[in-house]
Amino acid sequence: MEKSLAQSVVNKMFDDDMFSQWLGIERVLIEQGHCILRMKIRNEMLNGFGIAHGGIAFSFADSALAFASNSYGKLSVALDCSISFPVAVKEGDVLTCEAKELSLTNKTGTYLIEVKNQKNENVAFFKGTVYRTSKEWFPKEK
Amino acid sequence: MEKSLAQSVVNKMFDDDMFSQWLGIERVLIEQGHCILRMKIRNEMLNGFGIAHGGIAFSFADSALAFASNSYGKLSVALDCSISFPVAVKEGDVLTCEAKELSLTNKTGTYLIEVKNQKNENVAFFKGTVYRTSKEWFPKEK
Amino acid sequence: MEKSLAQSVVNKMFDDDMFSQWLGIERVLIEQGHCILRMKIRNEMLNGFGIAHGGIAFSFADSALAFASNSYGKLSVALDCSISFPVAVKEGDVLTCEAKELSLTNKTGTYLIEVKNQKNENVAFFKGTVYRTSKEWFPKEK
Amino acid sequence: MEKSLAQSVVNKMFDDDMFSQWLGIERVLIEQGHCILRMKIRNEMLNGFGIAHGGIAFSFADSALAFASNSYGKLSVALDCSISFPVAVKEGDVLTCEAKELSLTNKTGTYLIEVKNQKNENVAFFKGTVYRTSKEWFPKEK
Repeated sequence: MEKSLAQSVVNKMFDDDMFSQWLGIERVLIEQGHCILRMKIRNEMLNGFGIAHGGIAFSFADSALAFASNSYGKLSVALDCSISFPVAVKEGDVLTCEAKELSLTNKTGTYLIEVKNQKNENVAFFKGTVYRTSKEWFPKEK
Repeated sequence: MEKSLAQSVVNKMFDDDMFSQWLGIERVLIEQGHCILRMKIRNEMLNGFGIAHGGIAFSFADSALAFASNSYGKLSVALDCSISFPVAVKEGDVLTCEAKELSLTNKTGTYLIEVKNQKNENVAFFKGTVYRTSKEWFPKEK
Repeated sequence: MEKSLAQSVVNKMFDDDMFSQWLGIERVLIEQGHCILRMKIRNEMLNGFGIAHGGIAFSFADSALAFASNSYGKLSVALDCSISFPVAVKEGDVLTCEAKELSLTNKTGTYLIEVKNQKNENVAFFKGTVYRTSKEWFPKEK
Repeated sequence: MEKSLAQSVVNKMFDDDMFSQWLGIERVLIEQGHCILRMKIRNEMLNGFGIAHGGIAFSFADSALAFASNSYGKLSVALDCSISFPVAVKEGDVLTCEAKELSLTNKTGTYLIEVKNQKNENVAFFKGTVYRTSKEWFPKEK
C-alpha cells in the first residue's frame, strides 16, 4: 500500500529519533495532524518512588506532538507545553497516546494529547503549542 | 561534614531513580525547597531533527521539581507542569537547572525551574505545582 | 422540574458570583463535572488593540471550571490553569464554552474547556487542575 | 521628562484598553520587556465564594504580559499562558505584579509575571509565551 505524505514524513523523523527509539515508541496510526502511539514502561524509566518518572509520559506525548504537527512536511517546533498527571504510571504498564489537532493556523498549531494505560485510565493530559516555520523540510517526492 | 535532611532525602531518592541516572544527572546543590542539577546531552537524547528531544529538558527539570519539593521528607507528587522552549538544545550541551520555590502551603507547592546551557542561554522554563501528601515517607534519623 | 444537585450548587454559586455576572455569563447546561456556558463580548472587554483582552476568554473558561468542579458540592479550588489562544475574539462575538472532566480523584480533578465563537471556530483551549478540599460546602437538602 | 519608546507605546495601548481600565490598573513602571502594575480588588471582581475570581489575577498578569512584550513597538500576541494560584485574593487587596522577560527571540518571547498582595505574599505565578509578528504597529516618532 502506498504511504501517505504524513507517514513518509514521520517515518523519516522516527528513523533519526534516537530518544523515541530508546523509549520504545510504536507508531499505531499516523495521519495529518493526528497520531496514535504506544509504548511499554521499563525499569529504567522509573523514579525514586518506583513509579514512572514524569518525564516519561511527557516525552511520549511530546513525540506525538512532534509527529502530528510535522506531518504536513512543514518544520514545526514546540513553544509551550503543559501536562497534568492524574494517575501514576507503573512498570509494565502499556501506554497509548492520541494526538488531536485543536487548531491550525499558518504560523501556529495547538494539540491535545491524552495518555492512557492498559486499563483505559487517563494517566496524563498534554496540551502543546507549536510554531510552524516556513521551512518545508521534507523533500517532495517525485 | 554532616548531611542535611534535604541531602539525605534526595540521596535516597536518587539512588532508586533509574531514569535520572540514565539522564546522567549530577547533584550540584541540594537544600530544602531548592536545588541545582547538571547533565550533558548525549546522542541517544536527540530527536529526528538532530536536536535534543523536548522530553529531555522536561525530564531534567522534573527531576529538579521532585528533589526540591520532596526535600522536606513529605511525599510530594507533581500535578501540573508547563514548560516553554525558547532555544534548541544540542548534542554535547551541558545543561544546568535551578529549582526555586515560588510558594509552599501545607497541601501544595509551586516551583520555577530555569534550564540554561553552557553559554548561559535560557533553553527552558518550567513551572510545576505539586500536591503534598500527608505521608512522611523518609524515616526520621535517630 | 426538579433541580439536580449540580444545578442547585451552581445556581447558588452564580447568585453570589459578581464577576461572572459582570461578564454576562448564561448557564446553558449544568451537570456533574460538565457544563456549557455562553456570553457576548462587549466594548468594555476589549484591549488596546481593539480585540477581546486575553483575560476575558480565560475568565469565561475559569467560571466553567469552577461550576463543573464544584458541582458535586465539595469545595474545589483551581491550582493551575493553562490556556492557548489560536484565534482572536472580537466585539460582538458570542462565545460558548464547554467544560469536560478529564479525570477526577478524591483530591484532584482535571478539566478541558474549549471556547468557540459563533462561527464554531476554536478561540481558546483551557486546561485546569483543581484541588478538592474535604469541605462539603453545599448544605444537603432535606 | 522625555518619555521612552516603551512608555509611549504602553500609554497608547492603555488609552484604548477598556478592560485594563475597568480593572483599575495603574502603571508603576514601564520599560522595554519589563513592567510593574498595581490594582485593587473590588466587590464586582469576586466569585461565588467571596474571593477574587481567578480570571482577575490572570487578567492583571495578562495586561502586564501585553505591555512588556509590546513595549518594543512590534505587535506581539499571546499564544499560551499558564497560571498557578497558591493563595486566595480577597476584596480590598492591593495587588502588584511584575513582568520579567525570560527570553526574547525574533519570533517569540517568554515572560514570568509574579503577582503579590499587600502583605508581599505571592498570590499567582503566570508564565506566558507570545508570538512576535513582523508588524511595527507603533508609529515611529519624528
